[in-house]
Amino acid sequence: MRTLIQNVHVLTMDQTYTEYPNGFVLMNGNTIEAVGASGTPITVQVDKTIDGRGAIAMPGMVNTHTHIGMIPFRSLGDDTPDRLTRFLFPLEKACMTRSLAYHSGKYAIAEMQLAGITTFMDLYYFESDLARAADEMGARAILSETVLEDACDSPVPFGGLEYAERFIPEWLNHERITPAIAPHAPYTNTTESLQQARKIADHYGVPLTIHVSEMDFEMKKYEKEYQQTPIAYLAACGILNSNTVAAHCIFATPDDIALLAQHDVAVAHCIGANTKSAKGIAPIQAMQEAGLRIGLGTDGPSSGNTLDLFTQMRMVANFHKTQLKDRSAFPAREIVRLATMGGAEALGMAETIGSLEPGKKADLLLIETESVNMFPLFDPYATIVYSAQAANVQAVWIDGQPVVQEKSLVKIPLATLRQNLSSEMTDFRATASTFSK
Amino acid sequence: MRTLIQNVHVLTMDQTYTEYPNGFVLMNGNTIEAVGASGTPITVQVDKTIDGRGAIAMPGMVNTHTHIGMIPFRSLGDDTPDRLTRFLFPLEKACMTRSLAYHSGKYAIAEMQLAGITTFMDLYYFESDLARAADEMGARAILSETVLEDACDSPVPFGGLEYAERFIPEWLNHERITPAIAPHAPYTNTTESLQQARKIADHYGVPLTIHVSEMDFEMKKYEKEYQQTPIAYLAACGILNSNTVAAHCIFATPDDIALLAQHDVAVAHCIGANTKSAKGIAPIQAMQEAGLRIGLGTDGPSSGNTLDLFTQMRMVANFHKTQLKDRSAFPAREIVRLATMGGAEALGMAETIGSLEPGKKADLLLIETESVNMFPLFDPYATIVYSAQAANVQAVWIDGQPVVQEKSLVKIPLATLRQNLSSEMTDFRATASTFSK
Repeated sequence: MRTLIQNVHVLTMDQTYTEYPNGFVLMNGNTIEAVGASGTPITVQVDKTIDGRGAIAMPGMVNTHTHIGMIPFRSLGDDTPDRLTRFLFPLEKACMTRSLAYHSGKYAIAEMQLAGITTFMDLYYFESDLARAADEMGARAILSETVLEDACDSPVPFGGLEYAERFIPEWLNHERITPAIAPHAPYTNTTESLQQARKIADHYGVPLTIHVSEMDFEMKKYEKEYQQTPIAYLAACGILNSNTVAAHCIFATPDDIALLAQHDVAVAHCIGANTKSAKGIAPIQAMQEAGLRIGLGTDGPSSGNTLDLFTQMRMVANFHKTQLKDRSAFPAREIVRLATMGGAEALGMAETIGSLEPGKKADLLLIETESVNMFPLFDPYATIVYSAQAANVQAVWIDGQPVVQEKSLVKIPLATLRQNLSSEMTDFRATASTFSK
Repeated sequence: MRTLIQNVHVLTMDQTYTEYPNGFVLMNGNTIEAVGASGTPITVQVDKTIDGRGAIAMPGMVNTHTHIGMIPFRSLGDDTPDRLTRFLFPLEKACMTRSLAYHSGKYAIAEMQLAGITTFMDLYYFESDLARAADEMGARAILSETVLEDACDSPVPFGGLEYAERFIPEWLNHERITPAIAPHAPYTNTTESLQQARKIADHYGVPLTIHVSEMDFEMKKYEKEYQQTPIAYLAACGILNSNTVAAHCIFATPDDIALLAQHDVAVAHCIGANTKSAKGIAPIQAMQEAGLRIGLGTDGPSSGNTLDLFTQMRMVANFHKTQLKDRSAFPAREIVRLATMGGAEALGMAETIGSLEPGKKADLLLIETESVNMFPLFDPYATIVYSAQAANVQAVWIDGQPVVQEKSLVKIPLATLRQNLSSEMTDFRATASTFSK
């Protein structure tokens, strides 16, 4: 089955930023067969031709850090101090169930797909159910089961380890779904549980992701207890390697960055969530200079609120330019790269996704240019970073399958996903109303 | 003609943040007649009833600083150093015409209306044509003719003074349109032209707006030449009074803030444009503590790129929380206040707009809550600031007239406005292509 998308401005996001202002993309099954300028003769049989109506065609975006089970928490206690320990942990413990996580997961994936995110890395509980949600939604995803002492999906301390041992083999070798493990953070784990998580990841050859150097108190704790940074501690414990995604790294020191580079650890940069919570701005320019792989992350819907990378791209531009006092730092096309190839590299998927190149998976999106905010269009990268919003996403394909067309989900109405999730939220709402007093 | 909007979550934005989670708004002609909870008996004759379908109803947003003639510049040279002097000033001089400004103005106003902005303060050239554009679009607006040495709408130095003398009387006493004068900045004016602009503003009793303390070189110039800040200089020249809107004020010192307070000057805070250009973060918390009136501004479409306050509100939250290292600073509802009542106060219109209260002008919008990013909705202020985007704006009324319904312009198709503007851009495009080399 070959699908030809014509009349699009193609941003390939390949190594030299090849662009076709009047171009086409040809998909064959789940693969990109050709990309080029209009007028290039197509000699193969095409089954379906789509008129892109002047849209921007680009590789599907990659969200390197989120918590898809947390839609119920959105807009709850946003500006509260100690929100994590006062609201999130206790509410999760009291109300999070397999079914709530599953329906939240499907809703969150819908939100990402409607915003042009085709691949994501999740870190939450009940990941077996979330993997099922991702599979059903046609997503490409890495689902990482959380390990910490007191988890809502396990009655025993660090039960995520056992969960992961059951969960990971279930999903190994799936075409789009990759199971993984996520010790929550150094400060919520023992050295032993961290090392067991690393052992499980290595045994199955799957990714490990972890929140690192995100919290002020975390930095102080490691300084006081170990006279080292959390990153140095993780390195010393043998947790860090090239199949590791470290989320946040806000307080990474130059020595930390060198350690991350030495172990080839990738970083998930979540500028929106990090700055909304007043934590700070991760030094990603220094990380880039050290050669680190960096992707963007929305963080969960309670932290970053929206599951789209448009919001994040714009924040990356504004925060880092201001921080560096340089309006030419992080030019728009480099930021679009972070949201696509950067994320693919961070997740160890640079060979298969992240750019529109023949042989790669057919994960792509069209951004319409008809809405009021999309004119004029002198520089499509600038338009994407500074003007576009999630609502401009017109169509999305994952693994060659259309998941969004004409700004709507293809397989299931959004209203159904919402109704299903809302029905599951009865207990959550009741408990939340007692928490927020 | 009475219109009743039912089934809405009303945020009145009055002094005590009165909310009606299941409420109504009743308009009578161009005035708000009543606001309240559903079930309140309506004893008057209603001509039209609208089902808000669970939308958030709030006062129309107020954009306190923009340049509506600059749509042609959007996405052009965004990440270039010295963009103002290298791109914008020369291109304006070479290509800006009455007709281009007019069509850009209409397009920009459409963009604002589609994003729920009902009142704006503009600062540009050809303001007589822009006032006509604003009037035709049904906008409420203050249009401020620019004064600087070398203007594209005048062959003589500081020709904006003469222009303003002709333009202001033309539009005095219009229901929705207020003419004004805008000496561009202290550094682009002489002391004499600044004082003449002040004289004209006072003579006609109209606002004066000016860019202040926005540029690094501006601060250095005034330090070197006058041993004072630009704000102190303006105060000493007699330019500042309560009918003055100072845009940016990024580098305002504590003494400057005291001076602004002493003269009751209002501030237009343009966080998106200020940080995209790496200039900095205006100290608005200190300004609030000093009692200054503060509104939000998108700045022009070349600087802030989008003409919506959703982008700005989110940036206000993230930048100021991070700057102050306090996640509870600038809670969402205070930010929504900046976008509504704050702007109304800044523009001297607090008596007539900025909140949904009986007797005020019927300027309001509905934000739909059906889209994927709008669920769940525990806190509508948080949803507006952290989740909503311009595309969620469902309907807008200005002065009791519907200007946006079902996310589309009521009076004229957007495609027509775009085609008209695009046709005017031929010379601009040709010249721009030589500039960007």
